Parts: sequence; C-alpha cells; structure tokens
Amino acid sequence: MAPNKSIIFQKTVDEVPIPGTHLSIEDRPIDLSLPPPDGGLLLKNYYLSVDPYMRTRMEARFPKFYVSFFDVGEPIHNGGVAKVLKSRNPKFAEGDVVYFFNDKGLPFQEYTVCDAAMAEIPFKVENPYNVDVRHYVGALGLAGLTAYGSLYEIGKPKAGETILVSAASGAVGQLVGQLAKKEGLRVLGSVGSDEKLKYIVDELGFDGGFNYKTEEPRKALKRLALNGVDIYYDNVGGPLLEAALGEMNLFGRVVSSGMICDYNKQPENRYGVKSLRAIYMRRITFQGFICIDENILKHFPAMQEAIGKGLADGSIKFKQDITVGIENAIGAFLDLLNGGNNGKALVQLADLDVD
Amino acid sequence: MAPNKSIIFQKTVDEVPIPGTHLSIEDRPIDLSLPPPDGGLLLKNYYLSVDPYMRTRMEARFPKFYVSFFDVGEPIHNGGVAKVLKSRNPKFAEGDVVYFFNDKGLPFQEYTVCDAAMAEIPFKVENPYNVDVRHYVGALGLAGLTAYGSLYEIGKPKAGETILVSAASGAVGQLVGQLAKKEGLRVLGSVGSDEKLKYIVDELGFDGGFNYKTEEPRKALKRLALNGVDIYYDNVGGPLLEAALGEMNLFGRVVSSGMICDYNKQPENRYGVKSLRAIYMRRITFQGFICIDENILKHFPAMQEAIGKGLADGSIKFKQDITVGIENAIGAFLDLLNGGNNGKALVQLADLDVD
Repeated sequence: MAPNKSIIFQKTVDEVPIPGTHLSIEDRPIDLSLPPPDGGLLLKNYYLSVDPYMRTRMEARFPKFYVSFFDVGEPIHNGGVAKVLKSRNPKFAEGDVVYFFNDKGLPFQEYTVCDAAMAEIPFKVENPYNVDVRHYVGALGLAGLTAYGSLYEIGKPKAGETILVSAASGAVGQLVGQLAKKEGLRVLGSVGSDEKLKYIVDELGFDGGFNYKTEEPRKALKRLALNGVDIYYDNVGGPLLEAALGEMNLFGRVVSSGMICDYNKQPENRYGVKSLRAIYMRRITFQGFICIDENILKHFPAMQEAIGKGLADGSIKFKQDITVGIENAIGAFLDLLNGGNNGKALVQLADLDVD
Repeated sequence: MAPNKSIIFQKTVDEVPIPGTHLSIEDRPIDLSLPPPDGGLLLKNYYLSVDPYMRTRMEARFPKFYVSFFDVGEPIHNGGVAKVLKSRNPKFAEGDVVYFFNDKGLPFQEYTVCDAAMAEIPFKVENPYNVDVRHYVGALGLAGLTAYGSLYEIGKPKAGETILVSAASGAVGQLVGQLAKKEGLRVLGSVGSDEKLKYIVDELGFDGGFNYKTEEPRKALKRLALNGVDIYYDNVGGPLLEAALGEMNLFGRVVSSGMICDYNKQPENRYGVKSLRAIYMRRITFQGFICIDENILKHFPAMQEAIGKGLADGSIKFKQDITVGIENAIGAFLDLLNGGNNGKALVQLADLDVD
C-alpha cells in the first residue's frame, strides 16, 4: 500500500472553516498495484485548483440551484490536472495528462481511482500552444472560462467603455482586465494590497486601480472613473458592489461572478446593499452565472484558443500562487478566502516537468 | 382673468414631502381670451396621473440618468388628459382630446398654455375601443406601457411559470398580474391591506397573494410559491425584494420597475438587501428600465391594442382611485407614497363626460 494523503471534508461550515474541525488531512492508503475498475482509471494528481466558490460547497443549509456540495467524510474536489497511471478506458492511455475543469472535479488527494462514470469527466490536455500545464487548472480551465464566457456573454464589452474589476489580481480578475483591455476598454481594478495594485497597473496594463483597504471605494471611483462605469465585474459583492452601483452609467452591466465578502457569513450577517435603486434608475442589467451554464460553457473552445494564444505570445499574463504539497492545501484555501493569495491559487502535489 | 389653480414645486425634498413646504397650491390666473403662441395650444386639463416615481423628481441631489426633475417654482407635471380649447397648431383642432404620457407631462393646473415645442408632446386620444378616457393616464398610458413593455421585454413570461408582483393592486401591478395570467402563468401578489388582497384574488384572478403588513414575506412565499418564483416584478424594493430573491428559481428574472419603500429615504437610510448572492447562485437577471427606454417604448402600439381590447371586452380590469379636484392633488400624491391608494391614482380636475 502507498500513502495517499487526502483533504477530507469533516463537517459543514457555518462561518470560518477551521482546520481539523471542518477540513482535515488524512492518509487513505491505496494499493497502486491493483488495476482500476472496468472502464476506469488510476490517476496520479499533480495540480489542484483552489477557488473561493468551494467555500459555498461546505454550507450546511445548502443553497438550491448551485453546484453540488461536498460529501462529509470524503475528499473535497475541484478542477485539477492528473496523469493516467493505469487505464481500462479506451479514451485514455497510460501517460496521458488529463484535466478536470468543473465542479465534478478531481479529489484533493495524491492518487485517485476513477470508476467508469468518473472517467467520463476529464479531458486530455492537448496544449497546442505549449504553455505551462498548470494553466489547465486556471487560465485555460475554470477561471479562464469564467472570465471569458461571462465578460462576453453578460458584460458585452464595447471599445471606449470603462470596466471596473474587483479582486482584479485574482484568477478571474486578471484575465477579465486583460481581455477587456484587448477590446479597447478603459480598465480599472480593485485589489486588497499595494503590491497587487502595482501588479495590475505595471504588469497587466490596467489603466488604474485602488487598494480598497486603504482607500474608500466610493472616493476611489470618483477619482478614477471620471466617465462612470459601464461594466462592473463583481467578484466580491458587499461595499464595493454598493459603491460601484453608484457610479454606473446608463444601461450598465454588472457581471455577478461571486460575492467573496459574504462567503464566511451567515445570511443575517451578510452585507446589506443600499444602492440598488441605481438598477432601475440607470437601467442596469445585473446578471449572475456559473461557468457550467450553457451560455457560458459554449465559449470554452474560443476561450482556450484566445487565452492559450495570449499566454504563448505574452500578450496575456497570468500570475499563479502555487502552494507546494497537499499538506498545505487547507492553508492555501483559507488564505484565499482572506485575500492572502497573489494570483491564481493552486496546489502542486508533484511537478509534471520533473516526473 | 380666470383662476388657474396649480400645484407648485416649492422646495426639493430630503425625506417626506410636506404640503405647504415642498408642494403648495397657488392660483396663477390665466387670460382665456388670449390666443396661444404661434404653433401652440390652450388646453383645459381633465385628468392627471399620480405616480410614485414623481417623488424622485423632487430630490435635491438629483440622480444622474433618470427622468427630468421638477423645476422649483413651477407646477409639477406628469401624464395627463386635456382638451384643446384653442389651437394654433395644425396637428390639433379645437375640441380634440389629447394625452401626455411620459415625463414631459401635463402641468398640474387647470389650464395650460403650450408653446410650439410643448405642443409636439401630446398625442390625440383615438380611443378605438371606446373605453373610459381616464385610462389614457393609466392603463393605456404610462402605467400600461410600464407593465406591458417590461413584462414582455425583461420578464419574458412563459406559460407554467410563477410570477410574483409587488404592489399588486396598484396601477402597474394589476396590469402585470392580469397580463401574466393571460400568458398562462401562476400569478402571486403582494399588497398592503386585506381589502387589496381580496381585490387581486377575487376580482383580478390572481392565484394567491399576501398582505405584507400582516404576514412576513418570506413565510408567505414559502406558503404560496411552492414551485419557487420565476419572475419577480418589483415595484417596492427593500424587504420584499430581499425575500423574493430567496425564493427565485434558476434563471429567474427580476423586473426592477421601482423601489417605493426607499423613495422618502436618504441614501444612508435605505434598506440594505442581504440576499443578493441569489443573483449568481441562481443565475438571475435583475434588470431595470423606465418606460421611455427604446426597448420598452417600442411596445406602445401593441400595449394600447392588447390592453384597450382587454378593457373593452372585460378580460382586463383596472381599478382607478380618482381624487376629484386639483386642491386635493397633493393629498392624493402623499397617500400614494404611503400605499393609501386603491388602484391607479389619478386626479380629476373636471369630467370630460359632463363637459
């Protein structure tokens, strides 16, 4: 038997997840000499995506209509990259590198046995532009689809408009900003540190931004968004959403990608947004999505083409915040919920370039 | 000189408008023997529409992008019906009955002199279905267009779906409910009295409803909306919006027509809505409009045809709350802001059927 360290979902979460209480690391040894089940696969896991929305999958009173929740007693799972060690499925051969990109994800563990049904979920990493394979858990995976699909489908960017992106240095934010810049928009970003602000302006070419921890959003927007905001790409909700609504232009669009400021809060403690009258006064469309919706998912091939090319030719940058070792995965997730990440959060269990 | 009682906008309003302070009645005598200016009209005013959104036009720090605000020292104005006493405009003859249906409205006064520019605003009342002419300030005017245009354009009703209408016995609400019923939806309404509840269920054929003053909206919706809510037609905002979001179905639509619960409140005192995460979780489209937007206005002919026919054949009912006498107009407006009206609020200065 080989060791197989796994991140186990122990208990549903009311507020802040606590290591050891809600999530724990356990060794669940695996016999690597056994063949996988008929139609199945034995995988070695390399890169696992860490995303804020995973917090919602840990709630006790699980909201209707969202993605599936995690099973208590089982490993959490998410988008990821793995290598096929053994295959009894004709779609995959030993040595193939595969990625899981949606909520039916790769378990947070070192090795995974897929039955025939689960073996239908991953895609083979084709990597036509020969980019860092880690991007298949980020810029070319869930974050890429989220950013690209929703920006075009809901944001409907037009050259000359102004877009405001919150969590602008995060996985989705940095892509949205760069894609919008390519479309000829004026791009503003909100971030949680001066270092992140420097990154989006100096490295990603944002036209401006502010650190919401040191500058009041409303004031910052008065300073930066002199022509108002046509698209607000919202990853955070709360006070920033409230301030952004106040600066929106006529027929503006709010792309609702997530509201991380409320993720660790019970319903009664969530932020109450008082500026909603802008929605009818300014005829705003405030629309939500998740990336496995049909209207978003249809952008998947175009997204991989555009972002893959951009990564290869350097016109799109994508900072990754790589945590090495599955034993550090819980910490990486908790950091992410506090904005402690610097770019796309992922956990590297082993290095494909070395193996 | 003839007397010409007028409702004058005296002072911008912070919270609750006070008669005598913010709005007053003044006689501004008029010489009815004079001809109107070149290209203009002399009108006798009969029916004036009283609508909640007029409150917003009285704000000091007027919001960008909304309809025009009222001029201090001048009469307030809104949709209305008048008769042409004298015409120097080739489009209208003496005795024509005309209606103003948008924010470039008829002044709240007994007689109005239109210059050539203002004479371009009204339409002639054609009344092909021979309905009560008062409907041209309501069901066939601004309220009709608001209800019809936004229900189809933003609500996108489908047979079998459930719609919740707030302020359901009001001018817009009663039309939205009946139009949705004709489309085969299950129609629920929220109202502010048991009498109004009885009206929407017994008279208008709503499938159910509740009095939000005696039953907590969340509980009422759990009781009534067993299959959730696909369309929430929002006239009120605040706690009802918060509750409705919690019952929305996947890909639901929130039609944002107004937020009367906040009209008399300064920004910091408006209701903070805490349930916005439903927007991305349930992939809701929350969209605002005003009825002079192109996408709404294009429904004007279809609206007048459908509602005119419905009123004539009895398949659409439309309760009017008629206040007689311009001296009672301020009271009618303040009542409306408190939900004291019973149906479409209008002021009757004189009776066309008698004159």
